Amino acid sequence: MIGVGVIGYGYWGPNLVRNFSDIPSVDLRWVCDLQTERLARLRLRYPAVSITEDLNDVLSDPKVDAVAIATPVSTHFDLAMRALRAGKSVFVEKPITATAEQAERLIEEADRRGLVVAVDHTFIHTGAVKKLREVIQKDLGQVYYYDSVRVNLGLFQHDVSVVWDLAVHDLSIMDYVLGVQPRAVSATGIAHIAGSPENMAYLNLHFDTTLMAHIHVNWLAPVKVRRTLVGGSNKMVVYDDLEPSEKIKVYDSGITLDPMAPRAGEQKQQMRIGYRAGDMFAPKLDITEALGSELAEFIACVQRGTSPTADGVAGLRVVRILEAATRSMAQGGTVIELAPQRVLA
Amino acid sequence: MIGVGVIGYGYWGPNLVRNFSDIPSVDLRWVCDLQTERLARLRLRYPAVSITEDLNDVLSDPKVDAVAIATPVSTHFDLAMRALRAGKSVFVEKPITATAEQAERLIEEADRRGLVVAVDHTFIHTGAVKKLREVIQKDLGQVYYYDSVRVNLGLFQHDVSVVWDLAVHDLSIMDYVLGVQPRAVSATGIAHIAGSPENMAYLNLHFDTTLMAHIHVNWLAPVKVRRTLVGGSNKMVVYDDLEPSEKIKVYDSGITLDPMAPRAGEQKQQMRIGYRAGDMFAPKLDITEALGSELAEFIACVQRGTSPTADGVAGLRVVRILEAATRSMAQGGTVIELAPQRVLA
Amino acid sequence: MIGVGVIGYGYWGPNLVRNFSDIPSVDLRWVCDLQTERLARLRLRYPAVSITEDLNDVLSDPKVDAVAIATPVSTHFDLAMRALRAGKSVFVEKPITATAEQAERLIEEADRRGLVVAVDHTFIHTGAVKKLREVIQKDLGQVYYYDSVRVNLGLFQHDVSVVWDLAVHDLSIMDYVLGVQPRAVSATGIAHIAGSPENMAYLNLHFDTTLMAHIHVNWLAPVKVRRTLVGGSNKMVVYDDLEPSEKIKVYDSGITLDPMAPRAGEQKQQMRIGYRAGDMFAPKLDITEALGSELAEFIACVQRGTSPTADGVAGLRVVRILEAATRSMAQGGTVIELAPQRVLA
Amino acid sequence: MIGVGVIGYGYWGPNLVRNFSDIPSVDLRWVCDLQTERLARLRLRYPAVSITEDLNDVLSDPKVDAVAIATPVSTHFDLAMRALRAGKSVFVEKPITATAEQAERLIEEADRRGLVVAVDHTFIHTGAVKKLREVIQKDLGQVYYYDSVRVNLGLFQHDVSVVWDLAVHDLSIMDYVLGVQPRAVSATGIAHIAGSPENMAYLNLHFDTTLMAHIHVNWLAPVKVRRTLVGGSNKMVVYDDLEPSEKIKVYDSGITLDPMAPRAGEQKQQMRIGYRAGDMFAPKLDITEALGSELAEFIACVQRGTSPTADGVAGLRVVRILEAATRSMAQGGTVIELAPQRVLA
Repeated sequence: MIGVGVIGYGYWGPNLVRNFSDIPSVDLRWVCDLQTERLARLRLRYPAVSITEDLNDVLSDPKVDAVAIATPVSTHFDLAMRALRAGKSVFVEKPITATAEQAERLIEEADRRGLVVAVDHTFIHTGAVKKLREVIQKDLGQVYYYDSVRVNLGLFQHDVSVVWDLAVHDLSIMDYVLGVQPRAVSATGIAHIAGSPENMAYLNLHFDTTLMAHIHVNWLAPVKVRRTLVGGSNKMVVYDDLEPSEKIKVYDSGITLDPMAPRAGEQKQQMRIGYRAGDMFAPKLDITEALGSELAEFIACVQRGTSPTADGVAGLRVVRILEAATRSMAQGGTVIELAPQRVLA
Repeated sequence: MIGVGVIGYGYWGPNLVRNFSDIPSVDLRWVCDLQTERLARLRLRYPAVSITEDLNDVLSDPKVDAVAIATPVSTHFDLAMRALRAGKSVFVEKPITATAEQAERLIEEADRRGLVVAVDHTFIHTGAVKKLREVIQKDLGQVYYYDSVRVNLGLFQHDVSVVWDLAVHDLSIMDYVLGVQPRAVSATGIAHIAGSPENMAYLNLHFDTTLMAHIHVNWLAPVKVRRTLVGGSNKMVVYDDLEPSEKIKVYDSGITLDPMAPRAGEQKQQMRIGYRAGDMFAPKLDITEALGSELAEFIACVQRGTSPTADGVAGLRVVRILEAATRSMAQGGTVIELAPQRVLA
Repeated sequence: MIGVGVIGYGYWGPNLVRNFSDIPSVDLRWVCDLQTERLARLRLRYPAVSITEDLNDVLSDPKVDAVAIATPVSTHFDLAMRALRAGKSVFVEKPITATAEQAERLIEEADRRGLVVAVDHTFIHTGAVKKLREVIQKDLGQVYYYDSVRVNLGLFQHDVSVVWDLAVHDLSIMDYVLGVQPRAVSATGIAHIAGSPENMAYLNLHFDTTLMAHIHVNWLAPVKVRRTLVGGSNKMVVYDDLEPSEKIKVYDSGITLDPMAPRAGEQKQQMRIGYRAGDMFAPKLDITEALGSELAEFIACVQRGTSPTADGVAGLRVVRILEAATRSMAQGGTVIELAPQRVLA
Repeated sequence: MIGVGVIGYGYWGPNLVRNFSDIPSVDLRWVCDLQTERLARLRLRYPAVSITEDLNDVLSDPKVDAVAIATPVSTHFDLAMRALRAGKSVFVEKPITATAEQAERLIEEADRRGLVVAVDHTFIHTGAVKKLREVIQKDLGQVYYYDSVRVNLGLFQHDVSVVWDLAVHDLSIMDYVLGVQPRAVSATGIAHIAGSPENMAYLNLHFDTTLMAHIHVNWLAPVKVRRTLVGGSNKMVVYDDLEPSEKIKVYDSGITLDPMAPRAGEQKQQMRIGYRAGDMFAPKLDITEALGSELAEFIACVQRGTSPTADGVAGLRVVRILEAATRSMAQGGTVIELAPQRVLA
């Protein structure tokens, strides 16, 4: 049995608690939150779980092997570092930390102690994103572009911009499905409420190849859109997360290049660019709940000392892009080169 | 009767010919094209129209009052200038010219001679775009953003980039519905076929206010999208040109600002940002064919010596953005300030 | 406090338990089921609720005022009658009973004892259906037709046909929104698995007016559809339950009748039938969870001795149509007149 | 060259003229209509075609081999019979005649004279319907049902009901893709305007097997729907004619039958009915214009004396169902057995 404590019982914490309770090898021992009425609600439903407002109760319990942190981003680093130093593996909500430097320090601390650091990039555990990765890596050929739109009428966060709230999903998905890292980032955003963080933004990710990535996030859209287009030299794919079942559609479409008849006096063979539109295929998707699989993988990693799919380094790769995008927005859209990170080197 | 000549009988010319023939006050006298088999096709259908490969035949006919030019962009300036100098008013395909400087010269020449210059910004004559303008100007309040996506699997043009081919539509619509001009432009694009112009691009338009505009155009998308979101302080609107009838949807949704209870020690009143989602309304649209209305307006302007909705200056405003976007793409996305144009001053 | 027992903890029971626990005036005392592993699951989540496999434990508890029954249809009558005879009000899953005669007897028993009988017609407590009723009764004018499609790839029930499983929803919604009763029913259905009940069916409901109603239900459809069209003399409405937010769309469209110029020798004025297509309007909907409102209404009725929106008589009206449709299917689609029911007289 | 005359230049005639002119082996000689202003319009566009108000002009021209009839249904028989007797092959708009008996007589007359009778079942020449047929015959296994919805806000015909106007399309498609004939028909319809034909109707087609077919047609629907579901024992298919490109979607979904563990005392093996939802596949479709292919096939048949895909007998099969449906509607939905037709025997 792996002893687990959950820190934070606000919006996401109840999902962690519910899913941890369904894993047979988990002994869910503690839930910690500063708001007593939240804990009261928990007590009714999970009488066997101990509740506390003091993190030390959790960290000093020798039967706790791992801690899941579902608190505001600004607190992730401190809480995770305290847990690691108490010898606990950590599972941290996305984004893993508020700065890349913090993520690096967590990774180093965990490595030194042989502990697991996982970041909650939930989407990469969905059947749709797993299939998207498979299609991109097997069928698309050379990837030409990655274009994602994630907009809706949503809660304005007061502490983080829409980039840290929504684009973090696209960046974690992209990190997982493409398997290549951008070289630089530029971003344009705007805050329509004076004094608040940006509520809409456009990110450009620049790569060393002709691959181009673009992300549009917006809290102030009249309709909800969750759509990603990925174009390749052989096929193209649409990932629409709002489709009830056909979330992944693979199009056997693309550019064609045909040699043209050479004109008099021309030495170079000219090519005529055409396009072909072919069949579409929507593969069946695994519909297991993503969070359940993700937590089960984390627990297995803690048991075996192995590394999860979204480890601290994956969390770091995403945060350094978020940091750069934020800097670019502040500078009116300048291209920011992604500095090499110590632990990525 | 207004005597008319049509120059260019390729992709768009037949539509001009068909619509001009339906206007009772038009005497369609000439069609000019360099390819004889096109003219042969025309002769069968419109035996009363004279055909020629020589522009001088058209320009020297004293009964010709106006000339419509539907040839490649690179030829617009020369042909239109020759027509103006021959004393003919001109109706020019979009984009009006290949450079802003050319557009300026056409406008000045026409002004000097008291002739009409019109540019074929067809979309602004559709019922949908006319309603979009009305909604934006009457209902939206302060306009927060304008976001347009125009992508599909389409013919790669070999002479102009996707910006000149597709974004020109968005820019002409935006020019018409917003009524304010951007201050600067930045754009990122990529050519996936070496030696060809950019086949996908993202444009950011910067304004003096918190208004933000963004355009995504792509010839290499697996699905066709024609969707514009416009957000305002009072309402928001979606213009989806692929919807068979409900192309314009007005959402009574937006941000709310409520004063929060002041906390101890705070001097400034804090505001809680919320949102409201209300009714949606899809107004009935005028379904008259846009090109027909547009040509009828042009002919009326030639008769009365008045100015059309999309005059040379509208054409110029769009071209100088296209020029700036092209320059920005070449420089990796730099922000390009829009230089003041002589005739716009 | 109203003491409540829940009978049946299979598919729907957990939803009843969860919603009853959230009503402050409810003392959820018992859950009864014959399968012990279900009760074990419950015990973990709701330790304060007593569990039993013996209905007598529930019925003999004097603190139990009302019983909710979520068991197979064939058992509804016996369980509800026992509860009524023990002096408990009852809330019964749809359809209320397996025959109209059973429903009549429950209604009479409850009337005699001054107890409440409610049937779980959940949909009529949704914001969408409440708005549909309002639109039909206020805006549509004379109702011309009601057409509903409820198909998907779904679990084949082995004890009841698709009519009792799916059409019951449409019939309960129709009963609520139209406020008029059909005169006769005909139905055609087919069982594609020998020995199983019908897995697809079409129902025609005949009224005394020119109103026509039709329901298509199917467990073997490749796509999920939940769409109702209602046409009236003034407006028309679409209720699409799969739309994320715009579930109700009201169309200002319809027939127009214009007098035609009389022809020579004609005495009667002829009318030209045209149509008009106008604005569309999607009103904002109340998004309170339907089951919660429904159970709160039931509890309030038990407290005050009043009658719920979906009382036993509403349940009876639906069951007699189900019965007639079943008979019609067995007879190859004959029109079955709806016999007057004692308690409906 | 095959000499052709077109009779009727109203709604559909211009499409026939345009497509006949594009077939190189056709000598389009005559267009006949009773309204002179229609002929005037034609003269402008097709100066080489002779126009007349007198059918005899067409029928007495020895160079006319075939006549296409695009007039109201009530006139089809007389016009086609006159043409056949004048030795001309005929291409008749759908439905081929106003009664089955008329269709029989045309077929017999043509057979006697060795002439071609074709009916304009345009849809069966579309890429979508050709693919639908292929999928049904190759992939679906045993066909369980055919369900079609064809509704919109449309012109009320004053001479024929919605069944003869819209259901004729579904019946001709079904005839082509299923390859089996119904045994009986029942239909329910209603006329919301007193004195007018039925403007909405539901048809049930009964077969000798467990196949079931149903058609819903309506001129008074707020939205346009053109959707056919076909379920089979191996796969299911959706044909949605309003989809811009993915009109045919094949679902690898269906029922599963698994043997259940026998219970004590049971002799017969029980089967558990489940279902599986698998991949979806949208094949690329041929996008040639249907009417063009259809007319080319007709001309080739006239040249070679062969029989077209939709010959007179196909037209007859459809008309006898229309007739039976009309009789069933008049009798309140009675099941009408389809009498054997002489020429079908």
